[in-house]
Amino acid sequence: MARVSTPFSDKLGLRLPLIAAPMAGGPTTPGLVAACCAAGALGSFGFAYTQPEEMKKQAAALRAKTDRPFGVNLFVAPPIAAIDPGAQKAALEALAGYFAEMNLGKPEPAKAPYAPDLDAQLAAVEEIKPAVFTVHLGGLKREQVKRFQSKGVLVGGSANCVAEAKALQAAGFNFVIAQGGEAGGHRGSYLRDPYQSLTGTLALARMIVEAVELPVVAAGGIMDGAGIAAALALGAQCAQMGTAFIPCPESGASQVHKDLLVKTTEDETVVTEKFTGKPARGLVNRFIREMAAAPQLAFPAQGVATGKLRQAAGKAGNPDFINLWAGQAVALSRALPAAELIERLEAETVEAIQRAASFLK
Amino acid sequence: MARVSTPFSDKLGLRLPLIAAPMAGGPTTPGLVAACCAAGALGSFGFAYTQPEEMKKQAAALRAKTDRPFGVNLFVAPPIAAIDPGAQKAALEALAGYFAEMNLGKPEPAKAPYAPDLDAQLAAVEEIKPAVFTVHLGGLKREQVKRFQSKGVLVGGSANCVAEAKALQAAGFNFVIAQGGEAGGHRGSYLRDPYQSLTGTLALARMIVEAVELPVVAAGGIMDGAGIAAALALGAQCAQMGTAFIPCPESGASQVHKDLLVKTTEDETVVTEKFTGKPARGLVNRFIREMAAAPQLAFPAQGVATGKLRQAAGKAGNPDFINLWAGQAVALSRALPAAELIERLEAETVEAIQRAASFLK
Repeated sequence: MARVSTPFSDKLGLRLPLIAAPMAGGPTTPGLVAACCAAGALGSFGFAYTQPEEMKKQAAALRAKTDRPFGVNLFVAPPIAAIDPGAQKAALEALAGYFAEMNLGKPEPAKAPYAPDLDAQLAAVEEIKPAVFTVHLGGLKREQVKRFQSKGVLVGGSANCVAEAKALQAAGFNFVIAQGGEAGGHRGSYLRDPYQSLTGTLALARMIVEAVELPVVAAGGIMDGAGIAAALALGAQCAQMGTAFIPCPESGASQVHKDLLVKTTEDETVVTEKFTGKPARGLVNRFIREMAAAPQLAFPAQGVATGKLRQAAGKAGNPDFINLWAGQAVALSRALPAAELIERLEAETVEAIQRAASFLK
Repeated sequence: MARVSTPFSDKLGLRLPLIAAPMAGGPTTPGLVAACCAAGALGSFGFAYTQPEEMKKQAAALRAKTDRPFGVNLFVAPPIAAIDPGAQKAALEALAGYFAEMNLGKPEPAKAPYAPDLDAQLAAVEEIKPAVFTVHLGGLKREQVKRFQSKGVLVGGSANCVAEAKALQAAGFNFVIAQGGEAGGHRGSYLRDPYQSLTGTLALARMIVEAVELPVVAAGGIMDGAGIAAALALGAQCAQMGTAFIPCPESGASQVHKDLLVKTTEDETVVTEKFTGKPARGLVNRFIREMAAAPQLAFPAQGVATGKLRQAAGKAGNPDFINLWAGQAVALSRALPAAELIERLEAETVEAIQRAASFLK
């Protein structure tokens, strides 16, 4: 059978031009990364909330199993200032009823540090030397990019608009991930208002391909091989898929999250910042609906404040209080082991390209 | 050189699988329809605001020039009830300052009928017997669809979600236009809240291809041959493009509208209902910004109320008060005669499919 390879996927030694998206906070497990790498995609650690020592441990464990390339992703949003006690109180009060409903007692004040130290995480990435390092929610300084590149790491960043893609190019990045409005999870926006930066993948990927000279990875709304083929037709050299991997048995998402993705037949997603303080796309649920006008803390403190609630709901199989991250093409979800999913994606991509080629007369 | 043909474009006898979108209210002129038809695309009249006699006159004039197939589109939104005088007053007050600024005197109450009689328009379409008849903002009854089909007319409808596509299929439509969130102009939504139905084209077209058995036309964010190729890769059999044709010399859009499209380098669009009473996507301007919280009339009365202002601004070259309809991929706009644009689109589509096919190893 034919294979699909682009200059970008060849450079990385991938079997097909596919990045399994780094999904911090649960879905991406070491097992999922390993399974994706073994199947020939670029498995990627979502280390946004992971301490440096644990990052190194997980990377070493993967290397003990495989010599395939893998990716590491970090959130590089600027740190937040100390939280105002009044804001803290209001945000906790908005959560109190849900905590009581789940028998979790009173929500506790989110205390600094709200996330692992970014400099220490960056140093860990330097030590890990993954094949690919990508950043979300911001860029990197040109010197930082160069330091990673000098160790053989390809450096990519998310762009939600043309300006962000140009900024990444100007900072010397190796490639740009065009994250379209369809994408599930956190919006990568950092130069524009994220709500004014929800350009669909088809439009965004094409505008970015035309605006920069770097290889483009298309992300958002891609759930099958036809989507990958469309990305390649747009001039992207690779697709990045997240939601498609959430229902995999290797994923660490809660079972109720997985089941809901597979059951959903329509785009029932919305962008919310109520779970973490940053806009992210997920299935609408009771928490999102009821919290619409409620006060919240800045990212990542809101995520810390809601963490106990989300975890308890996940364990209880209660979808009301879980961040059910999902992209807009959620209706195409299927529950397959990662290896089988990737095998099908490859065959579907070939088939979609051949179908399009059959239209040439 | 190779050509691109799909079962859908073959059935219609098109040179390439492309519908030049019907753009009522200015951009689509008889000259633009004729030029698109002559170049091998399906030129389409946007007759939403056109009286039946004028519809027949324009169709006859086109037929005198060409025997190529063409399309006709109508808005089939349910008629609005009589307008409450209080609402009328508030809506006019919100416009008064702009009317004064443009020396237009006081805005006048919108009087019924706010739009041509839909039944009479439908009868005119039956008489015209275009190759294709499409509806926006609603569906048709099964018997209506059949009546058009019995006269050899292919009937299509816009879907902004999976449910709308299924409803069109159930009503016996021949094809579905998957109008993604990127699309400029009026959202076609009629079963869901339009603001909850802004699914990107890549996601929407693919979900609809999987959900229905009808041929799918992808619309929204497609501005060049790479976009058409992506639509075909997604399983669509045709692309519909609107914004791309607005800067054509044959288009009736105001010059300032055309110039702004070509000048814009980023997705600077937003969905607004302030111009017509129905959500539509266009370039952000002063009117949209300042009117955000202002009262408005229902569609199409708001369009009548703002009509004089929009026309005067267009003539004056003042972009502040014009509905600058544009899709999210506006940055890819180019000012070319329709025939040249379509010729390039064909070559680009071939090239994009060949590039994707070159990735098969």
